[in-house]
Formats: sequence, structure tokens, C-alpha cells
Amino acid sequence: MPRIGVMTTGGDCAGLNAAIRAVVATCTGQGAEVLGILKGTEGLMADPPGFVVLDAGIVDGPLLRQGGTTLGSVNRGNPLRHPMPDGSTIDFSAKVKAGYQALRLDNLVAIGGDGSMRIMAELARRTGIRFIGVPKTIDNDLAATDSTIGFATAVEVAVEALDRLQPTAASHSRIMVLEVMGRDSGHIALSAGIAGGADVILIPEIPWRVAAAAAAIARLAARGRNYALVVVAEAVRDPEGAQAVVGPSRPGAMPRLGGIGGRVAAILERATGAEARVTVLGHVQRGGQPGATDRVLAAGLGVRAAELALAGVSGRMVAVQGGVLGDVAIDEAVAAQRPVDPAGQLVATARALGISMGDA
Amino acid sequence: MPRIGVMTTGGDCAGLNAAIRAVVATCTGQGAEVLGILKGTEGLMADPPGFVVLDAGIVDGPLLRQGGTTLGSVNRGNPLRHPMPDGSTIDFSAKVKAGYQALRLDNLVAIGGDGSMRIMAELARRTGIRFIGVPKTIDNDLAATDSTIGFATAVEVAVEALDRLQPTAASHSRIMVLEVMGRDSGHIALSAGIAGGADVILIPEIPWRVAAAAAAIARLAARGRNYALVVVAEAVRDPEGAQAVVGPSRPGAMPRLGGIGGRVAAILERATGAEARVTVLGHVQRGGQPGATDRVLAAGLGVRAAELALAGVSGRMVAVQGGVLGDVAIDEAVAAQRPVDPAGQLVATARALGISMGDA
Amino acid sequence: MPRIGVMTTGGDCAGLNAAIRAVVATCTGQGAEVLGILKGTEGLMADPPGFVVLDAGIVDGPLLRQGGTTLGSVNRGNPLRHPMPDGSTIDFSAKVKAGYQALRLDNLVAIGGDGSMRIMAELARRTGIRFIGVPKTIDNDLAATDSTIGFATAVEVAVEALDRLQPTAASHSRIMVLEVMGRDSGHIALSAGIAGGADVILIPEIPWRVAAAAAAIARLAARGRNYALVVVAEAVRDPEGAQAVVGPSRPGAMPRLGGIGGRVAAILERATGAEARVTVLGHVQRGGQPGATDRVLAAGLGVRAAELALAGVSGRMVAVQGGVLGDVAIDEAVAAQRPVDPAGQLVATARALGISMGDA
Amino acid sequence: MPRIGVMTTGGDCAGLNAAIRAVVATCTGQGAEVLGILKGTEGLMADPPGFVVLDAGIVDGPLLRQGGTTLGSVNRGNPLRHPMPDGSTIDFSAKVKAGYQALRLDNLVAIGGDGSMRIMAELARRTGIRFIGVPKTIDNDLAATDSTIGFATAVEVAVEALDRLQPTAASHSRIMVLEVMGRDSGHIALSAGIAGGADVILIPEIPWRVAAAAAAIARLAARGRNYALVVVAEAVRDPEGAQAVVGPSRPGAMPRLGGIGGRVAAILERATGAEARVTVLGHVQRGGQPGATDRVLAAGLGVRAAELALAGVSGRMVAVQGGVLGDVAIDEAVAAQRPVDPAGQLVATARALGISMGDA
Repeated sequence: MPRIGVMTTGGDCAGLNAAIRAVVATCTGQGAEVLGILKGTEGLMADPPGFVVLDAGIVDGPLLRQGGTTLGSVNRGNPLRHPMPDGSTIDFSAKVKAGYQALRLDNLVAIGGDGSMRIMAELARRTGIRFIGVPKTIDNDLAATDSTIGFATAVEVAVEALDRLQPTAASHSRIMVLEVMGRDSGHIALSAGIAGGADVILIPEIPWRVAAAAAAIARLAARGRNYALVVVAEAVRDPEGAQAVVGPSRPGAMPRLGGIGGRVAAILERATGAEARVTVLGHVQRGGQPGATDRVLAAGLGVRAAELALAGVSGRMVAVQGGVLGDVAIDEAVAAQRPVDPAGQLVATARALGISMGDA
Repeated sequence: MPRIGVMTTGGDCAGLNAAIRAVVATCTGQGAEVLGILKGTEGLMADPPGFVVLDAGIVDGPLLRQGGTTLGSVNRGNPLRHPMPDGSTIDFSAKVKAGYQALRLDNLVAIGGDGSMRIMAELARRTGIRFIGVPKTIDNDLAATDSTIGFATAVEVAVEALDRLQPTAASHSRIMVLEVMGRDSGHIALSAGIAGGADVILIPEIPWRVAAAAAAIARLAARGRNYALVVVAEAVRDPEGAQAVVGPSRPGAMPRLGGIGGRVAAILERATGAEARVTVLGHVQRGGQPGATDRVLAAGLGVRAAELALAGVSGRMVAVQGGVLGDVAIDEAVAAQRPVDPAGQLVATARALGISMGDA
Repeated sequence: MPRIGVMTTGGDCAGLNAAIRAVVATCTGQGAEVLGILKGTEGLMADPPGFVVLDAGIVDGPLLRQGGTTLGSVNRGNPLRHPMPDGSTIDFSAKVKAGYQALRLDNLVAIGGDGSMRIMAELARRTGIRFIGVPKTIDNDLAATDSTIGFATAVEVAVEALDRLQPTAASHSRIMVLEVMGRDSGHIALSAGIAGGADVILIPEIPWRVAAAAAAIARLAARGRNYALVVVAEAVRDPEGAQAVVGPSRPGAMPRLGGIGGRVAAILERATGAEARVTVLGHVQRGGQPGATDRVLAAGLGVRAAELALAGVSGRMVAVQGGVLGDVAIDEAVAAQRPVDPAGQLVATARALGISMGDA
Repeated sequence: MPRIGVMTTGGDCAGLNAAIRAVVATCTGQGAEVLGILKGTEGLMADPPGFVVLDAGIVDGPLLRQGGTTLGSVNRGNPLRHPMPDGSTIDFSAKVKAGYQALRLDNLVAIGGDGSMRIMAELARRTGIRFIGVPKTIDNDLAATDSTIGFATAVEVAVEALDRLQPTAASHSRIMVLEVMGRDSGHIALSAGIAGGADVILIPEIPWRVAAAAAAIARLAARGRNYALVVVAEAVRDPEGAQAVVGPSRPGAMPRLGGIGGRVAAILERATGAEARVTVLGHVQRGGQPGATDRVLAAGLGVRAAELALAGVSGRMVAVQGGVLGDVAIDEAVAAQRPVDPAGQLVATARALGISMGDA
């Protein structure tokens, strides 16, 4: 009876539990055992290893519908460069291997983002452990797969916020700025902005100018609109000349709050004369119930990963390409991030809808 | 200044208003006029034609978020075979052409299902009017496009129902049967069942047997599960031997209610000895706020349709193929419906998860 | 250290887990033990009794947000008149007492409806066991308390359905009939109808006439409205003359489906000439995530019940009266059900809004 | 035929449109005309006055379900002390009266918060215009009524955020801080915290100490909990000694963002050693679809206000007291705000649940 491990690594998102469940159901359906590794590689490195036995009954029922990950996760633990108290780092890959062997795993399904995939690939090279990757990140920035688990739900949460901000914006003739997550990319901002009726979408892939954004809002006013919805990705930077408008940003001071959303609101207030308000959704985008899209995706990817793991395959990541489930070599999977393509179909759709991308 | 018409035909679904808005925004952004035709081809056939002028302001704001269609629709009106009081039919395509000409339309964006596409193609052939099709149907059964507007939201609504049925099923040790829409296909049932944690999914593409479904429920009981979730597509038929279990169906009697969901509940009660309850979601699956997925899809398809219409193209349907927006000849678009593939990835995913498709 | 039992009895609803959690948190916060009795009185009657130890950790986290009851429930088990195979009944109150004593309970918090309260009161009289009642029922029909756990969420679910039915009704010029639960009363129908924009609300407390309901829909049409929303409580009966319109109801045939909703749809179709569709929400109204109102109510009632139980009080039900948490003697609590008052403020509000109650 | 005006003033919230609809339906049902005044008193002061004619058709359909106010509102305009460019203020009550007379209003239903009620009372005294007040505010801080329109929905939105934050907090062993609105009071924070499973609730009515809040989180850790949910009302102030922990607050710098939520997160990070994250919901709490509770409340209050207005009554505010709809003299209505009672039932419930109020 083969024994498969499953773990979640990196930032959590909606759909992780649905993926865990798919792995467990597939494995147990084929007579294999499944061990859930607690807190990602930390669970493997611990002595004794941190794990739980997962069977179909345990992952049944409400788990599918819950956000987060029942196995826990850590955001920083790179066992290849584990931080030591003196500031140096140490390679703990031997500890990971020891845990893998102590649990007598035949393969390991690692659900994570691109950082985790890179670490797993390197761990596998150094230690010979087997793994199959499952891509998850709300940021949707992996080049090797059309979609990652968590993205669709994060977009839904941001759209819901825009749905709530639109009537209050209209009631009070305001500019409403919504700052969304997305790490270095603007995927969440772009999709949520299109779906949520944004008038301006600012993403890091397209530099913005104060004058262009203000002009877009002025055009709305010219045709009788008394409000504007602005979506800002967290990685957007100050445009040229912003300091002249609102002064320098203060990077040391509460960076999570005095973020780009607040600066954009302040800049647009000065540039347009309208009142602006800002909402910072933060981790609300990560933790909720997964939507149907993420659950179907997590099921498909989880099942396929489990099947590969049971077949003894290693070093590959499951993926969706052109709408078809498949898998790619892990090195290909992590070769490139996927920013928003400024010349792509989605940006073109936004522009055709009259949405300003801040550059015109 | 070109003048483009836009109309919705056939059964409504979530995302129609988002598509209308995309057409209007694209056209007005390029200096074109847009007329909204009321109640599909009925609006064109009326004398004077039924229409409203649509500009960016009118389609702004809450419309994007609303279910249904602000232009109205009719489900039955085939102007090629208009029913007459004496039971005969008459070809009203000349009236459609007259309306099209009276409004001086340069092109017409027709948002509809495959039936509507067929009618539009024939109308164009007979009358020479131009049109571009936009695929919408909650049933997702068009072969020429990966996705149709309305499907994703219908699935979300059905999943939400399963999320609510699971705890009450577990609290009372019951079989909960959910009957969902889908016309002749099982797409909604399959996706919703996977996402919503169904134990049994019955779709018309896979004939079911009472013994197989009952055995699946018995297997759940054997591993300690005290409840079961069953999703049934509306087009599912009685299995062989059902009459012996619950008597003949009464097709004449309130067909909407005494539907397959109730029969499946009755059959499974008899076959398993467990209590069963049934929910028939009905039109709740059509009319709600569109989810983000449907809104992004409607935006992309609507923009592209408007661009084709403005370019003078006719006889094509916009589509998504392999995740890419494009368009197909209308004859290709309506050549085949797309049932669920019993050997496809999604059914395989369901089976790997341990879901019974009623045949094993 | 006192030991308190907690159990749920009767039909489940949203907020039961929130009430259980409140009982556990309150008891453990005061150093008491809590045993969760499984499946209501069945758990007490079993030998050995069915129970789980509940501590703050167990009831933490997601439980609060989940529908149903983690302790299970049974809908029919009256231990005072337990059904025997030969059709007779037997008094099992001694078994209940034996279980109560075997678990060495000092008191028992029974979360249930009025039927359960009556049984508990009788059990207490016959056996001397202590209990405190907590009122829950989606039907909100207990005279002794303003609100019962589960009602607010059931109304929200029904309103959400109306929100989804309105646009599809308007798109297709239809009458949409929504059949909601409520046992013998029309509380859910009345509140949901007012909140959801119903045009006609039919409740068992106000007999309806076909002509009056049809006239109400005709008045809508006269002012340009092309659709109507009708809410029907499950206990509504055929109006006089209905048989002449749609034939006799067939009580034996799939009573759950061929219910009043379908009959009202058929009657109104015949009487108005408009198309009608029906949705039967069924158990979707019971099982979902509790809304904030039900969670706050469950917290307040659960805390107070636990405090009374810890104080050794018995034979009382916690209640909300005039917005204030308190408690009432159990005999007072079950003395009367509370139907909708046809002369009350809520019916008057509905009428002022122009809603037809089917009688005018 | 009497003519009634209706307007919304002050900050918007969910349920305003439902209240407007109730006023219109009641008035038109009794043969009266209704004028909707645009942007509150600004619409009356404009020359010509800003208004729209409202009839049953206009307020029908989706309006009931929409957030915000279709009539617009302004947050600052006190016509008794209208700000002039030179910094002085001027009494524009004569302009209000002129508008009221120009529109030939017989009475005016003013939907607003306590500030608006005070202004209306003074305006009525000075000018003799008639008005009936309808209480709305998400803050729920009016002494004369149990509930105000908008509060229940704001609580639901905050609870939904907590539902999403809990799993991500648990997945990453974090403290999640949610800053909610509420102006000077903690009503939203208290109800949302109880319903959303908060571990610590900080409200302005109960001064908090760093040591007490940190100890509460330490107690959770001691029983195995790896995360904490903290709800903070916006009016909460720094506790004693906070500066020593995180430095002085910078009141001038982006006050909306560098708010108390961020400070509490920073303080608790330092005091507990755990990671903390903050979410600032902002106007998301105001603008969404009203929940059923707010819609039923808006219907009841709107109907009663319209009936009083039609009866020629003036200077009273409709209210709910002990669950009963009624009305109070406006001076009584605005005599006192209603802070959270630190000795009241809801705080006691929170404490019994083991929630720390920051003082123990």
C-alpha cells in the first residue's frame, strides 16, 4: 500500500482544503494511505515529524467549503536557507529528507506557489525525495498554468467589495479607491476591475500618470457621472510627480496601511477636487469560502496530482493549459512568472469598456 | 456614425446585462450609436419597432450587477415559424427585415443560445441582415465555445444550495436530492456536484441504475457517513425498473414539480431505507447577480462582438476556445451541441473523488 | 465541578452550533464540564449513552459559522411515546432518566422547538431531571419569545431567492411563485415577502381567494408591470373554487413536490393568463451558514441558558421579550403557538406597501 | 391630493432605497403624490429645487435591493450654518423654506441620522415646515429607537469579513485585526465580534489596556489556539502606554489609513510576539445590498412615517421600541445618543463567551 504525503506551503488561499480533499479521496480510492504534513516543510523537519493521518471520513463534509488550510502553512520557511539567530542561514534539506523517510512516504503532493515550487525542485535535487506540485496563489502569476487555485475567489471577494462601494460612491459623489492584493502583478486588480465596473484600474505592469487618471475621471464627470471606482493593485508605485502632489511616501511607517491605496486616494483628491475614500481589503481576499470555480479547479488539479504521485512520477507540476488539465516539468513551471500582458486580451477588453489603465 | 442594434433572445441568465453594457461601451467609445431591441426579434417585428437608445450613462452603475436582461426576452418566438391561431405557422422574416431597416441598423449583436443562433443564421440568409452572435446559456452546451454566459453563475447558485443542504443532511441523517437545470445536458449538475461535495451525480449523458446509486450510498454508510448529497440534472430519466419501485411517473400532472428530482428521492428512499428530501431550485439558477467569472466573460465576448459588428462582419459568433477569445462561423457554432463527455476529464475527476455517476 | 449536558432536538436550523458553542464557552469559563448529547433524547436513551465531551477548543473556530447541528438531531423521537413495531407506543422516560444519571449530569440545556419543550417539560415532571430550554425553529411560532434561533436566516435565504427570481421574472414577463417553509404559520413568508419585494403573500392565517390574488396581479399589469412575485407559505390551503380551476389536489402523490406552490402557480396561470413558474426552496432554508442576527441571538440565549443551568434552575425556557433577554416558565412557553396576527403591524406594513395578502 | 416630499440626508447606508420605496408605496396607495428631493436639504435650497417625481413604478423592482440612496445625499450640508468662502457661516433656512413652498409640499419625510434630525427640528422651528423623521445610521447610536436602518447590514458585512479572516488566521497562526465603523460608538464592533467569533473586541465605551488584551491572547495560546481575531471600533483610542510600544500616532498623516486598526495590530504584535495583520473595511460597510432585517425595518418605518406625514403630523421620528413600531417627539429622539452600555446584556454575553473587552 503506497503512502502519499500532502502539504500546503506559502500564503494560504481559498481552495486549499478542496485540493487536499481531492488528493485524499483519490489516494484512498486506490487503496493508498495519506499523511497530511503540518505546516509545510516545517512538519517534515520537526522531530518527530508533524503529521496527521487523513482518510476519506476526515476530509469529508464541511472541509471542502472552508477557506484556509487545515494542515497549516508557513510563509517564510525555506529549509534550504533556514535563518539562524546570528543572521546566517543553514541548509536543512537533510532534515526534510529525514522526515520524509521517517514517515516512509512514497511521494509528496506539495500545494504551493512558485516560490514553494522552486524550493521543492531544489530539495528534490539535493535529497532525492519525490514530489508533485499543485499550483496555488491568489496572484495567478505562474506562467505554466492558465489558472491557480485561489485566484477566482480572490477576484470574487474584490468584486463584491466594488458592488458595495458603487452605491455609496454614487450616493455621495465620491471617488472610491479599492486596494487589492496580487503581489508583483495586477491580475486580481484587472479581473476584479472589469467585473466590478471600475472606471480606473492601476496595475504595476502599466505605469500610470496622475494627469491621465484625473482626465479619465473628468471625462466621467463630463458625461454626468458623479462618482468613480478605482482599483489599485498593491504593487503599484507612485507615479512621476506624486511627491509634488501629496509629499513623499513614508516607507517605514506602518507599510501595510499607509499603502498605495491611500496614496492614490490622496493624489486623486488633489488632482480632481473630488472627495476620495479608500478600502484596503487585505487578508479578506485569502480566507473565505472557495467559490465554485476554485473548487472545481482544486478537484481537477488535486486528483491529477494524486494520480501522478501514485504512479511514482516526480518533479512535475499539474497545470491547466488551454482549458485542459495536464502537467509540466517543474523547471518549466518556475522558469517565469506571468505578469499581466499590457497588450493582451484582458487589458484590451478593459480599454474597450472605457476603463482607464492610468496611462490614457 | 454607424448604428448597432443589440438584443437578448431565449431564456435569460446572469450576465446578459454585463454583455449589453460591454457592447454599448465599445460602440459608444468608437462613436457609434446603439439601439437596444426590446424582447428579441419581437421588438424588430413590431410596428413601430420596440427599442431604446442606449448610451454609456444608461448602462452604467448598477446594471452590470443585475441579473436578467434589461431589454427583455422571449423564449418561444421563432419568427421563421411564428405560430398562428389556427395552429399553422408563418414566416415573419420579412417583418424582422423591415424592423431592421426601419431602425437603419448597420449590424445587430444577438445575445442568445444555440436555438437563437440557428434562427439568426437562417434570418440572415433569407433577409441579408447582418448580425454577430454572443453565446449565452446556463446549460453550457454549445460545442463551439468553452464557456457560455450564465453557466458559471448557475453553478455557483447550485453549489450554494449544496452548501446549505450538507449540514442539514448531516444533522438528520438524510439523503438530500437537488434537482438542477441544464436542459438536455448535465454540465451544471456535474460541475456543481464536484464543487458542492455531491456523493452521487446523475446526468442524462450517463444512464443510471437504481442498484448502483443505492450501492454508492451504502458504501458511504459503511464508512460511517450518515448522509448523502445527490445532484440530478433535470433531463435525467427514470432508470430501468424504477416503475417497480415507485410506480409510473405521471407526465401530465404538474410536470414542473413532479419532476425527476422527486422521483429520484422516492426511488432512493425505497432502495436504501433512508429518509430523502428534494429541493428544486428552478429559476433561482437564472436570475441572480452574475458572478465575477460571468461578468469577465460577458465583457470579453461583448467587446469582441461589438468590434466585429463595427467592422461590418456578419454571420459569426464570438467564442472562447482554449481560453482565448475569438469567433467562429455561425454554422460551425450551431453544428453540434456539446453534451457532457462521459469519458472526459471532468467525469474522470468526479469518479476519482469517489462520486458515483449512478452507473457504478 | 458541575456537569452540564447540551443537546439539540427537532428539525435543525441555522444557529444551533452557535448556541452550542455559547453554552460550552459559558460553562467552561465557569469551570464546569459540558457533555454534548448525540441525537437529542436518543443519545440519552442509548446504552451506553451517546455523547461527546465538549470543551472550548472543540467548539472553536469554524463551528460557529456552520449550519446544522454538530450533535445531530432526530425529528420524531418522542421518548414518552416511543413507537413499537406492533404500532403501539411505550414510555421510555425511565431510559432517559437512566442516561441522564449515568452521565451524572447536573442539568441539561435542550435546544429545541415547542414540541421538544413540551416533551422536556413532561420528562422533567415524570423523572425529576433538570433542564433549561432554548427556543429554536425557523418557523418563529413560539408565543413566549419574540424570536427563535433559525428564523432570521431562513428569511434571508428566502429573500435571496426572491432577489434572484425578480430579474428573471421581469425578463420574461412571468409570475414567479416561491414556496417557503413555516410549518403551520406564515412568519417566513410574510417577512421574506416584505423584504423581497413580493406582490402577493399567501399565509395560512389569512384565507385567500383566487379572484383577489388575480385582481392584484391585474392591477400590477394595469400600471405597466409585466411580472409578479408571489410568496406562498407551505401550510396555505387551496382556496374555495380552486378545484374548478385546476382539478383536485392529489394528496397521496409525492406530497413534497406537488405542494401548494405548484398549485398556486397553476391556479394563477389559469386565472391571469400569464406564465407562472414555481420554486420550492425546501431544506435550503434550514441548513446554511447562520446570519449575524441568528448568531447574536444564539449567543445571548445560549449564554443565559448556561448560566441558569449552572445555577441549578430547571423548567424554564430562555426567551427574548421586547428585545430583552430573559426566561419564562416552560409551561408558559409552550402554552400557545404564535400565528401571524392578521391585524398586526407586519401585515399592516405589507398592505400599506401594496402587497396583496390574497384576500383583497 | 396631498404632496409629500422624501429625502435622505447624512451618510448613506443599506436600506435607504427600501425606506424610500415604502414611503412612495404608502403615499401613492392613498392617492398622494411623492416628490423625491435630491441631495437632502441641498435639493430644497437649490433654485429651482432639485427633485424627481416618484411613483410606484419608479421605485419598483431592483431599487429595493440596492445599497445607497437613489436620491443622493450630502454629508456636511447644514443649512443652518452653511459654510461661506470667508470661513463664516450663514443661515439658509429661508432657502429651505422657499424650496419647500415652491414644491408645494404638505409634509416631508426626512430619512437621516441624529445630526439630521437635530437640523430638521431646528429648521421646522424656524420656518414652520412639516417633517417626519426616519432614523438611519449604521452606528445604531440613537437612544430613542432599538434599531436604525443600516446597522444590521453593516454588522453582516463585518461578520462576513471575520468569516473570511478566521481560516487564514488559523492557517498562518496570526492575529487578525478588523477595524470597523461606528462613529463614536462600538455597536457594530460588539455585535459583529460576537457573531463573528472575535476573541478580543475593543470599543470606545470600554477603555482597554495593552496588558489585558495581550493576556487574553496568551490565554488562547495556552489552550492550544494558534490565532486570534480582534475587532476594533474606529473610535477606539490608544491605550495608556501605547506610545512606549509603537511610538506616537501621527494624526496628520493619512488619518483614514494610519488609523486605530493599524495601531492595534502593531501594539499587539509587539506585546505578544505574534504576527498581526489588519483589514480596514471602510465604506464597504455602507453600500451593499441591504439584508432582510434592514429591509423589513425600512419597510415598517417608511410606511409609518408616510402615514404620519399623510395625517399632517410633524416633528416626530418613527422608532422601534421593545420591538414595537411607534414614534417619538423629535426632541426626545435627539436628546441623547446611545453608546454601548458596558453593563448591558450584550457586553455580558461577550464576556460570558470568553471574549476579552480589552479590560480583562
